[in-house]
Amino acid sequence: MSDPLPTGSVIGILGGGQLGRMLALAAARLGLRCHIYDPGDAPPAAQVSDALTTAAWDDADALEAFARSVDVVTYEFENVPAEALDRIEAICPIRPNRTALATSQDRLTEKTFLQDLGLKTAPFATVDDLAGLESAVAEVGLPSILKTRRFGYDGKGQARLNEDSDLPAIWSAMTDAPSILEGFVDFSAEVSVIGARSLDGAVACFDPGENVHSDGILRTTTVPASLPASLQADAVLLAGRILNALDYVGVIGVELFVTPGGLVVNEFAPRVHNSGHWTQNGCAICQFEQHIRAICGWPLGDGTRHSDVMMENLIGADMDRVPELAASGAALHLYGKAEVREGRKMGHVNHLKPLGSG
Amino acid sequence: MSDPLPTGSVIGILGGGQLGRMLALAAARLGLRCHIYDPGDAPPAAQVSDALTTAAWDDADALEAFARSVDVVTYEFENVPAEALDRIEAICPIRPNRTALATSQDRLTEKTFLQDLGLKTAPFATVDDLAGLESAVAEVGLPSILKTRRFGYDGKGQARLNEDSDLPAIWSAMTDAPSILEGFVDFSAEVSVIGARSLDGAVACFDPGENVHSDGILRTTTVPASLPASLQADAVLLAGRILNALDYVGVIGVELFVTPGGLVVNEFAPRVHNSGHWTQNGCAICQFEQHIRAICGWPLGDGTRHSDVMMENLIGADMDRVPELAASGAALHLYGKAEVREGRKMGHVNHLKPLGSG
Repeated sequence: MSDPLPTGSVIGILGGGQLGRMLALAAARLGLRCHIYDPGDAPPAAQVSDALTTAAWDDADALEAFARSVDVVTYEFENVPAEALDRIEAICPIRPNRTALATSQDRLTEKTFLQDLGLKTAPFATVDDLAGLESAVAEVGLPSILKTRRFGYDGKGQARLNEDSDLPAIWSAMTDAPSILEGFVDFSAEVSVIGARSLDGAVACFDPGENVHSDGILRTTTVPASLPASLQADAVLLAGRILNALDYVGVIGVELFVTPGGLVVNEFAPRVHNSGHWTQNGCAICQFEQHIRAICGWPLGDGTRHSDVMMENLIGADMDRVPELAASGAALHLYGKAEVREGRKMGHVNHLKPLGSG
Repeated sequence: MSDPLPTGSVIGILGGGQLGRMLALAAARLGLRCHIYDPGDAPPAAQVSDALTTAAWDDADALEAFARSVDVVTYEFENVPAEALDRIEAICPIRPNRTALATSQDRLTEKTFLQDLGLKTAPFATVDDLAGLESAVAEVGLPSILKTRRFGYDGKGQARLNEDSDLPAIWSAMTDAPSILEGFVDFSAEVSVIGARSLDGAVACFDPGENVHSDGILRTTTVPASLPASLQADAVLLAGRILNALDYVGVIGVELFVTPGGLVVNEFAPRVHNSGHWTQNGCAICQFEQHIRAICGWPLGDGTRHSDVMMENLIGADMDRVPELAASGAALHLYGKAEVREGRKMGHVNHLKPLGSG
């Protein structure tokens, strides 16, 4: 393996949203610099980074200049176009690797990969046209959920199907995008494991957190999760299998359903994950620093939890609560986004309690 | 009082060293931006800040443009020239206030202020010339320590006087700078209290830490300090008196000697302090965020300690230990300084243990 990147090295981050911003803050703690690549205007990560390239994902010159100016490239979201990655990868390593990204970018590939690993997933069937939707419904049953194979996040690109759903109307609203139909899983809780794998193959996981969603968006994550010890161990082992199978380098977020028959994998994200934000105040080394350490070839840090935490997302008008939260003793994390919009993640807050007091 | 500065506001920081850098990282967590003013080349804080002004302390135009571009100004070191502060203050509030700065900038003013508050200090006498040095020695005794009244830090501008010291040679080496002679205090430990006071006068202190110096530079700070509970309370009360007497807004570092007769104040620094770096990994809200909250008119955060911590400075060639420390499970904080020099503070590391295990 190559040597760890020395302090002063430059990390290229594709995407300048809040995840890129918090990666940049963690990199700074290790004396590393960040260069953000983002097509948008005033990305939040640029406020705390050493350099910014504002250019489109298909700007070959900008991508190549960016790749030449950094020592390693990572990404804060999984839908970076493949052609952009091709240009970068010809010049500079991308971590986590392309396999991890390609696997998670497509729900069909992802589910097939998980099943091939022997892990449980929701029942699913591919849907490429209306006839396919009808046969998928016959196979998977109702209620179920239709999801585009690519480019979905926070509940977008999804439709719930019930007994009385108008299949042609729903299919037409999906604009013919290749999709899968997923059966519902009867779960008692959703938990996620934030795992990390270093360049030399060491694996470390944070304690599983218990997630609550609403309208398809994560609202809270609580550690410890209400999970029997055996399932806690299963969750960690399962994340380790995924990391090793992908020869992964960096942090991964694995979402799991807790069912009477054990853990069912919902999906994984090849990046730092909203459900891991509690680690910023619950551990000496948070998920963002763990990711930076891994992609720079550093040893993983100690992710032991020192406190119980309830992480709460601040979405849209939740920003009105900031004055009250600032006075509450909780740890605020705001993303520096100028405009508050409905459904937009504006920040989060970590409520701490002494270890074991929950 | 004025309203708290909203997220998106800009904090001007005078000085772009490691303290400015860690202030900027803390400000970012609250959605606030930073603008660094520093005469030097590539100050570490600029790597993580939204804006940088590179200009001299006597550049009136640059100072005024800087002051107009920010919402509040703070400083990372106490020796900012008064003329620069005059120009800024005509346009923008400076926190902590000028009184705090002026008091701490001059060892004579500082000691007089502390004595007027009824606090104990080392015995001292003013020294303005060689004759004054001789009479100060007669008054304070030997061994003692001669210190310039202004511009000393990390043991610079100091000389130790023993029975066989050559007073004329020592005085001439001080280049006639107005000085004070301080008697030695027979102390069993040096502790410091990091206190904070908000714009509306609320005071909060972190747990006292125990400091070990060598060659005039802080090496380690350990919490909890080996201090009886009554002296812990005294330390906090004393810091509160200083904060209130100065009508202070922000974080202060108060260094104390533990003696058989109680606590003796060594000095205070009107800023975040090296001996408070342990708070970054020992508390939900660290000293840097506490300072940012205070100067922006926000409520103070919860500085309750959740872990025992030993903070160790990385000075000069200590950087060679970074690979080993990175693998040790400790929390590293590196300052992004390109050049390693002997005696230069390059970073620090926080070693955590569960609360009460020390």
